[in-house]
Amino acid sequence: MKTSLDCIPCLLRQALDAARFISADPAVHEQIVRDVLRWTGEMDMSLSAPAMAQRIHRRLRRVTGVDDPYREKKDRQNSLALELIPAIRAEVETADDPLLMAARLAIAGNIIDLGVNGDISEADVRHDIGNALIEPFFGDMDGFQQAAREARSILYLADNAGEIAFDRLLIEQLSPDRVTLAVRGAPVINDATRVDAQAVGLDQIVEVIDNGSDAPGTILSDCAPDFRRRFANADLIIAKGQGNYEALSDEPGPLFFLFKAKCPVIAEHVGQPVGTQMLIHPGRDAGAAVPAQMDNLQTSR
Amino acid sequence: MKTSLDCIPCLLRQALDAARFISADPAVHEQIVRDVLRWTGEMDMSLSAPAMAQRIHRRLRRVTGVDDPYREKKDRQNSLALELIPAIRAEVETADDPLLMAARLAIAGNIIDLGVNGDISEADVRHDIGNALIEPFFGDMDGFQQAAREARSILYLADNAGEIAFDRLLIEQLSPDRVTLAVRGAPVINDATRVDAQAVGLDQIVEVIDNGSDAPGTILSDCAPDFRRRFANADLIIAKGQGNYEALSDEPGPLFFLFKAKCPVIAEHVGQPVGTQMLIHPGRDAGAAVPAQMDNLQTSR
Repeated sequence: MKTSLDCIPCLLRQALDAARFISADPAVHEQIVRDVLRWTGEMDMSLSAPAMAQRIHRRLRRVTGVDDPYREKKDRQNSLALELIPAIRAEVETADDPLLMAARLAIAGNIIDLGVNGDISEADVRHDIGNALIEPFFGDMDGFQQAAREARSILYLADNAGEIAFDRLLIEQLSPDRVTLAVRGAPVINDATRVDAQAVGLDQIVEVIDNGSDAPGTILSDCAPDFRRRFANADLIIAKGQGNYEALSDEPGPLFFLFKAKCPVIAEHVGQPVGTQMLIHPGRDAGAAVPAQMDNLQTSR
Repeated sequence: MKTSLDCIPCLLRQALDAARFISADPAVHEQIVRDVLRWTGEMDMSLSAPAMAQRIHRRLRRVTGVDDPYREKKDRQNSLALELIPAIRAEVETADDPLLMAARLAIAGNIIDLGVNGDISEADVRHDIGNALIEPFFGDMDGFQQAAREARSILYLADNAGEIAFDRLLIEQLSPDRVTLAVRGAPVINDATRVDAQAVGLDQIVEVIDNGSDAPGTILSDCAPDFRRRFANADLIIAKGQGNYEALSDEPGPLFFLFKAKCPVIAEHVGQPVGTQMLIHPGRDAGAAVPAQMDNLQTSR
C-alpha cells in the first residue's frame, strides 16, 4: 500500500525516537530529522512506509557506525517471550481449535515490543496476551485453515524478535516439515533476523532463510533472487506484522496476513477499528468477523 | 522558546489537519505537507513554533483563497462559551479568592476548543471546566496578585475565540479601566481577533487593540510599532495560552503567562506534568504549587 500523508508525521516521529535510541548526540538527532524531512518532501508517495523506514535506519546505522543498534533490545524481547511460552503452549495444546488459538497468539505476540520498550510492565504484557484473545478479530479463518490443510509448501515471513517465539507455536500447528521461515536479511529496528530464529529454536524445526533485504517489511524488489523464487513457488505465504502488510498488500499470490491494526491508516485500509487482530487474504473476500471463542485463556491466567 | 525537534512531527500533523479542515482537495493537502517538509527541513531551529505555524496558515489561506477559514468555528466557540458564562461568573463572585478562581477558569476555558472540534461533547466541556479546578496547578499566585494590585496599566494578550469569554471574567476582576486587551491582527486558526472581543462584549469594558500580526502567538518582531510600544510600557502583561508562551517566554518584562501545558515539549520546558495549569512569571522564581482550593465548583455543578 502507498504511504498516506498521515504516515509522514509518524515516520518522522519514529525516526527521531530511533535516533535518540541509537545516539545521545543532539547533532545526530537533528541530522536525521533534517534528512527525513528532505526525503519525504521529495518522496514518491507510491512508495510504502517500510521503504522509507529502510532508508531512515540505513542512514542511522551509517551515521552512528553501529550495525545492529537494537541487538540488546531484541535479546530481551526473546527472553521475555520465551518465559511466557510454556504457559501459552499449554493453552494452544488444550484449545478446541489449536490452529486458531495459535494464530491469534502469534498476532498478540507483537505486544512484547511494548513491554521491552518500558511502555508497559512485563506483568501487563502477560495480562494483555491473555486479553488479546477477547480483542476484536477479523479474518477468514476458514480460508486460512483450508489453505493450511492443502499447502505442500508454506513460506512464513517473520516480523519482530520476541514475537518470533509466538510464531513458533503457530508453525508447530502447521506441520513444520513443509514450512520455511524467512527473516530479514540484515538488522533493521527490532525485526527478526537469523539470530532471533535461533534464539527461539526455530532453526531446529524448520528451514530458515533470509530475504536479503534490510527493509522492515518484505519489499520484493529489494529481496534476494532466491527468496523471490521461494515466494513465487510457495503454496501458502503467511506474512506477519504491519510492515509486511504495508509492503505486500498489493501483491498477488496465496498470501495470508496476520497482524494487529495498530494505527489509524492501516485500520482504515482494512476497514476495521484500530486494535483489531487481522487474519486476511486480500485476494479473496476477507470473510466475516470471527467471534472470540477463547475467553477461558484470559480467565485461566 | 526554540522549536524542539519534537515539535516538527506535531507541526506537520497540525498542518495536515488544517489543510483538511480548510479544503477537501487532496492535492492541496499534499502541497501543504510538502511545503511544510521543505520549510522545516531548512528551518532555523531558533524560531518558535508559532512562527512556523504562521507560515503554514498564511500559505493555506493563499492556496485556498479563504481569508478566515475558521470563522464559523470561532462563532460556535464564542456561543458555547457564552452559554457557560452565567454559571461560571456566579462561581467567581462567590469564591473565597475571586482573582485566583477567575485566573484558573480563564486557563480552563481553553478546553472550549475540544468541544467545538467534536473531540468531546459539550456536556463534557461543562464537566471538564468544573474538573479544571482540581487539576494540578503550578504558579506564583502571590506574585500575580501583588503585580495585579500595583499595576497602573495592564496589557492582556488573548488566545483563542471562545476562551476569550472566560478572559472577560478575569479582566472584570482586574478593574477593567486599566486593562488593554490585545488580539491578533488578522485571522489565524481559531485565535481571537477584534470580532471575537466584540462577540463577548469585551469592547464595552476595555480598550481593544490588535497586535498587527497574523502569528498564533505574540512574535514581537512581527507586531505593529504601536503594539510594541504598549508592550514596552505596560506595568503588567498577562499572556494567555501556549502560543503566547512559546513566542514570549524568553522576553524580559513584567510578564505573567497563564496556560495549560498541553504537550510534552512545553511540559518539560516548565518542569511540570502535561495537563498542569500554569500561572508563571519566568523572570522570577515561579513559586510553589498552589493546592486546589475550589473543589466546590466541581461538585456544585
